[in-house]
Amino acid sequence: MSSALIDTLRGCVGAANVLTEGDLSAYELDWRRRWRGKALAVARPASTSEVAAVVRACAAASAAIVAQGGNTGLVGAGVPDASGSQVLLSLARMNRIRSIDHANLTLTAEAGCVLQAVQQAAADAGLLFPLSLAAEGSCTIGGNLATNAGGTQVLRYGNARSLCLGLEAVTAQGDIWHGLAGLRKDNTGYDLRDLLIGSEGTLAIITAATLALHPRPAATMTAMAACASPEQCLALLEAAQQRFGPALTGFEVMNRLSMALVSRHFPRLRQPLSMAPWKVLVELSDNEGATHARAMFEGLLADALEAGTISDAAVAQSVAQSRGMWHLREAIPLAQSEEGLNIKHDIALPVSRIPAFCNATGAALAARWPGVRLVNFGHLGDGNLHYNVQAPKGQDPAAFLQAEEQAVNRLVFDAAVAHGGSISAEHGIGALKRVELAQRKDPTALAMMRAIKRALDPQGLLNPGRLL
Amino acid sequence: MSSALIDTLRGCVGAANVLTEGDLSAYELDWRRRWRGKALAVARPASTSEVAAVVRACAAASAAIVAQGGNTGLVGAGVPDASGSQVLLSLARMNRIRSIDHANLTLTAEAGCVLQAVQQAAADAGLLFPLSLAAEGSCTIGGNLATNAGGTQVLRYGNARSLCLGLEAVTAQGDIWHGLAGLRKDNTGYDLRDLLIGSEGTLAIITAATLALHPRPAATMTAMAACASPEQCLALLEAAQQRFGPALTGFEVMNRLSMALVSRHFPRLRQPLSMAPWKVLVELSDNEGATHARAMFEGLLADALEAGTISDAAVAQSVAQSRGMWHLREAIPLAQSEEGLNIKHDIALPVSRIPAFCNATGAALAARWPGVRLVNFGHLGDGNLHYNVQAPKGQDPAAFLQAEEQAVNRLVFDAAVAHGGSISAEHGIGALKRVELAQRKDPTALAMMRAIKRALDPQGLLNPGRLL
Repeated sequence: MSSALIDTLRGCVGAANVLTEGDLSAYELDWRRRWRGKALAVARPASTSEVAAVVRACAAASAAIVAQGGNTGLVGAGVPDASGSQVLLSLARMNRIRSIDHANLTLTAEAGCVLQAVQQAAADAGLLFPLSLAAEGSCTIGGNLATNAGGTQVLRYGNARSLCLGLEAVTAQGDIWHGLAGLRKDNTGYDLRDLLIGSEGTLAIITAATLALHPRPAATMTAMAACASPEQCLALLEAAQQRFGPALTGFEVMNRLSMALVSRHFPRLRQPLSMAPWKVLVELSDNEGATHARAMFEGLLADALEAGTISDAAVAQSVAQSRGMWHLREAIPLAQSEEGLNIKHDIALPVSRIPAFCNATGAALAARWPGVRLVNFGHLGDGNLHYNVQAPKGQDPAAFLQAEEQAVNRLVFDAAVAHGGSISAEHGIGALKRVELAQRKDPTALAMMRAIKRALDPQGLLNPGRLL
Repeated sequence: MSSALIDTLRGCVGAANVLTEGDLSAYELDWRRRWRGKALAVARPASTSEVAAVVRACAAASAAIVAQGGNTGLVGAGVPDASGSQVLLSLARMNRIRSIDHANLTLTAEAGCVLQAVQQAAADAGLLFPLSLAAEGSCTIGGNLATNAGGTQVLRYGNARSLCLGLEAVTAQGDIWHGLAGLRKDNTGYDLRDLLIGSEGTLAIITAATLALHPRPAATMTAMAACASPEQCLALLEAAQQRFGPALTGFEVMNRLSMALVSRHFPRLRQPLSMAPWKVLVELSDNEGATHARAMFEGLLADALEAGTISDAAVAQSVAQSRGMWHLREAIPLAQSEEGLNIKHDIALPVSRIPAFCNATGAALAARWPGVRLVNFGHLGDGNLHYNVQAPKGQDPAAFLQAEEQAVNRLVFDAAVAHGGSISAEHGIGALKRVELAQRKDPTALAMMRAIKRALDPQGLLNPGRLL
């Protein structure tokens, strides 16, 4: 049966694009090296009709299908399980930008387009595709949509979902939904687009998308400020929102330990401000230009200093200085890895609850694990914290992780939920949080999700064992 | 059986809130007077648990349920059919603002809250809820979400869907989904929120929503400009988007006949510019203030005059003048009614295709129905045209409507679809366009929609005969 299916797949996409031997780690091992699977075969279709043919062949053989883009996911949703029975469907060869419509501010790309290529195509047309995240050099737009990726500009432009106007997708039956549309208003039935976005390859396989572009701002500028507490960070956020409105495109916070780890492991990165309990990185995208942007920043920061909201601030004087500030922020996860294993959380909270969450949860962790170290940073503007827990100094990180991860997770997730939050802000569920989801999600929502899954994929072929 | 159900409903919501006699036109007749139904009973629950009890009672009796908010829908989705067997579930008594979270920029309202009350509650908190449409004094937020309402600020703030962060809803089984959340990032499973939004009461009954608020701009200002063609309107839109960025919050176009009808039927409304093939109403929401807004407008309009994109322009010098410009735009549908019956279309197109659509469709209509009059106006910024066809002068409007409506619809819808457009931009499907949808929607999408409907409402109790 398996070899018959492999033969059929060869007929669908050409023998050269069905991989069954040699080192398939690039497909079978996730990049954080937490899940290693074994695929029956890796199929690499080059067109939507080839994807449909692969799905029909798998459906006929009752073989499960795992769709994969750039294999940069963080929750194990894009690699096969260890059974050796699942077909890994790589979208990597479907990497064309199909079209750009300048006057409509849209771009249509195939699922396997690398995010950076989409950004670049928009830039080449004098426009902006604002989705931006650490893996942008290798993640694909199909994967971004399948996980509803977030990133640093969500407070202004929304998640991947908000940047997608239309989809083309292949159903579990191997039918093609031609849903590419460059429309900002279209009330003709159920919102299948948003249902597929974020469904992690469990309801259909996204093959192409029409994306929303934006005009490029005349100038983008950043500033850094020092705050004494989460409450002060929040006060600065409110002031920036009021003053900048939609020109506020980034608002990142970093606690003292985050910056200390960056200092220790990347001493050559310049820190524009001396150490403080919290640093805030503010990004302004100005439609008039750099002079106007600088005046806007000076108004905000002078008032904030006067009000005691911040104790210090620096406005980037050049694009290079702006990039330097972002490097500090982006270096945190790398500095953490250098420091040793840690327990990561990608949580979201109502912005207003973040101070209470931080105070209560920090105290609870410290009481239970004296000396535990919190690397707390993230996108305050949209309520998303990367709330990471590092072993107390002197303890072996691996031993701490092994012994305490479950208890730490329980404490942090309980606290997030108690404060109206989510256990997965932008990374998704995948294999990593599947059990957690089943335990914590509203039971009526779970029942609706399961009913939808059964309705659209009655054979359970699409990415089984992920999400639900 | 029916009287037993009515007794049960009385037990659920109190006898005073189950209406079966007297004039029930307010519930049974839509406001455009196109659909008059007959309900088995009108049930008026006051809480989510009462809604759930009503649904469970109806499910046990296999009685269909039509949910209704302010009964201002335009497609017949909110009134019962003529069978006398459907229960009309009015959300009107669920009209509380449950909470406002200023720092999180959210407001939680029950489904029966009138849109204007939501706007006012946000304004009282110094914030903005930007959803705005003609019926805002009587439509409800639940209905707005069930139809994914649009309106005039979609190019900046999106549809109702984009302004909703969380829902509470009652399923067809009478279970309550507690999905109210004030989170801007939450990737924990399928996007049930967006699936229910726009589903017109056919998948579940929305009982409350957490809505996204925005900071209030320091100044909102409008200008009017005269253009010679759709191409010029589009050139002005591109210039305004580039210069204003997200501060551009409105961009409405009105063809000559639209303005001529307003002049004829509302001669006291001041027209700031002399007649032109096209008038454009531009709205700018400025975060710095009126002086800055005026300077921005002057820059845009001076350049556009210089480039020949516009032939004339006027910037409102006061809030009253801004309102006056909006009154001209809002008076078009009323002026059309005064002029006589007409064939209305609520279509959306890729913005870039609007000139080609207008030129081709106008010519095709004129060739087939010489002298036919087009009242073409709408939200150019998001590609939504209200493309209305009025009988040739001298012909009886009612007779023209009766004889030609189907053929006119076919021509206009064919042209919209041929230009990549939609047959329903913001009004929805309901009873009005149900047959049209079944004929025109992508068959794979239709199959997925039907599968979802069967999965979530296997008895087919929720708003049968609407949408699908």
